[in-house]
Amino acid sequence: MKILSFKFNGEVKFGPKVKKEEAVWDVVAIQEELNVLPSFPANIIDGVALGFDFVEKIRKLVEAAKNSDNVESFKRAFTEIEWLSPIPRTPKNILCIGKNYDEHAKEMGATAAPTDLVVFTKSPTSIAADGQVLPIHTSETDSLDYEGELAVVIGKVGKNIAKNQALDYIFGYTIANDITARDLQDRHKQYFLGKSLDGSCPLGPYVVTKDEIPNPQNLTIVTKVNGAIRQNGSTKDMVFSVEELVSILSQYVTLEPGDVILTGTPAGVGKGMTPPVYLKAGDEVKISIEGIGTLSNKFE
Amino acid sequence: MKILSFKFNGEVKFGPKVKKEEAVWDVVAIQEELNVLPSFPANIIDGVALGFDFVEKIRKLVEAAKNSDNVESFKRAFTEIEWLSPIPRTPKNILCIGKNYDEHAKEMGATAAPTDLVVFTKSPTSIAADGQVLPIHTSETDSLDYEGELAVVIGKVGKNIAKNQALDYIFGYTIANDITARDLQDRHKQYFLGKSLDGSCPLGPYVVTKDEIPNPQNLTIVTKVNGAIRQNGSTKDMVFSVEELVSILSQYVTLEPGDVILTGTPAGVGKGMTPPVYLKAGDEVKISIEGIGTLSNKFE
Repeated sequence: MKILSFKFNGEVKFGPKVKKEEAVWDVVAIQEELNVLPSFPANIIDGVALGFDFVEKIRKLVEAAKNSDNVESFKRAFTEIEWLSPIPRTPKNILCIGKNYDEHAKEMGATAAPTDLVVFTKSPTSIAADGQVLPIHTSETDSLDYEGELAVVIGKVGKNIAKNQALDYIFGYTIANDITARDLQDRHKQYFLGKSLDGSCPLGPYVVTKDEIPNPQNLTIVTKVNGAIRQNGSTKDMVFSVEELVSILSQYVTLEPGDVILTGTPAGVGKGMTPPVYLKAGDEVKISIEGIGTLSNKFE
Repeated sequence: MKILSFKFNGEVKFGPKVKKEEAVWDVVAIQEELNVLPSFPANIIDGVALGFDFVEKIRKLVEAAKNSDNVESFKRAFTEIEWLSPIPRTPKNILCIGKNYDEHAKEMGATAAPTDLVVFTKSPTSIAADGQVLPIHTSETDSLDYEGELAVVIGKVGKNIAKNQALDYIFGYTIANDITARDLQDRHKQYFLGKSLDGSCPLGPYVVTKDEIPNPQNLTIVTKVNGAIRQNGSTKDMVFSVEELVSILSQYVTLEPGDVILTGTPAGVGKGMTPPVYLKAGDEVKISIEGIGTLSNKFE
């Protein structure tokens, strides 16, 4: 199932896309009006925490809407909603893995990928939506760069998760652009500031439940800037797999439902070009991951 | 005013200490029963966001309780509450400044303090309370270290805050122990993992409103391990002042009510000793800051 978050009449909502229509099911409205289920979460993080039961509940609500007398009243056309990040606000900073593809580590000047996880964070105030026009931040940086990444959405509280149990803790996947101010990243040593400018973490368009992605280590990731391919990688080239990332992170940090892990970017970032080419006003970045969709953002 | 957070009958609450008694006023209960104010926040972050009005509202509630027929029913004895961090959960990761005292930068091996802010974060899942017994984490690290620090609690949303406006965005101050696994800090390059073990961010005992700390740049900080003085510094030796930290951080990251900024530690950490001396089970760390109080934690 592909679940999106959106704003409608000022309220933050979520739901699955209506098949073959440019619309989303307002599942919270279905539950409120038709009272189908004994209980249903009002926000997506409480939903994600239910795991696959969340998907089952959503299916029942959509079924009830289809069987109701006013099926159209439960659909929100894409023209009347504001898209949000599928997880509009993470419970802690977004967890990010540095240099998790060998070729990217090399283009950044390293001789090889690190042998121990490089983990940094992005402020949740940097989260943005698919389609949102993002600030180019010329007063803060002269070297804003893209990084297309597979993002993992955590579904339950976990500590010391064994590698072979890691998938149990994943709710689904989405796409991230780990936008980075390269000058700030260098100047301030620790990456946090250069990774946390407003709008520097677009996520979306959907969170895709894990049943639709049976193997997260065999997905193509393509990043285009103004239509030209810049990154063309595969998640099979990750140094640490998704399962390893969840397992290792949880040795040190308690993971929680709604946490988002950015799994690192393949080669082809602007800094890796000769000479480096950074983002400028008017640019459009599109990141596509097989089975998930395309995350698009323009800059101004 | 000194405000603490606590758990009573399973509920998270907050209130000011009862003068000359080992108890706290349950201000939410006062409001619920006596209905003194048109509205009152149910959690401390919504309160902090009101700025000084929060203090005024609390004063009115305490006054009403004192004038009521059942004044004792609104007090919670320290023996019947569980202490929490004054901010039990920050809205984003705790913002931390590295090497903000020259002598500490030198004991960590640098020739001088950095000229640009070093900013990293700690997971909010690492927050702990005054008096809480903290895990020594022997399976994760062999070099757990303390860092006594002045912590700033942000009171309103801010972006691009001018230095001379910075105090307007501060609600108050508390004490932090920025507990750090030195081996993880070194091995993983970016500090996040080594700074985010469960229990590695005790905060407290109180958040002290800023009116009680007219000059945050002239406070002594003393850290004792098992009674022996290890750190004996003053906030006057910060490289970047509290006002500068708020101003510079807000150039890049949107600050929010309840955000906590750890302002860096003076010289005297365990890693700076010859040979280094790290924490072990049974140790007790006490950090005292003038005008705020003492934050005490044992390890096991």
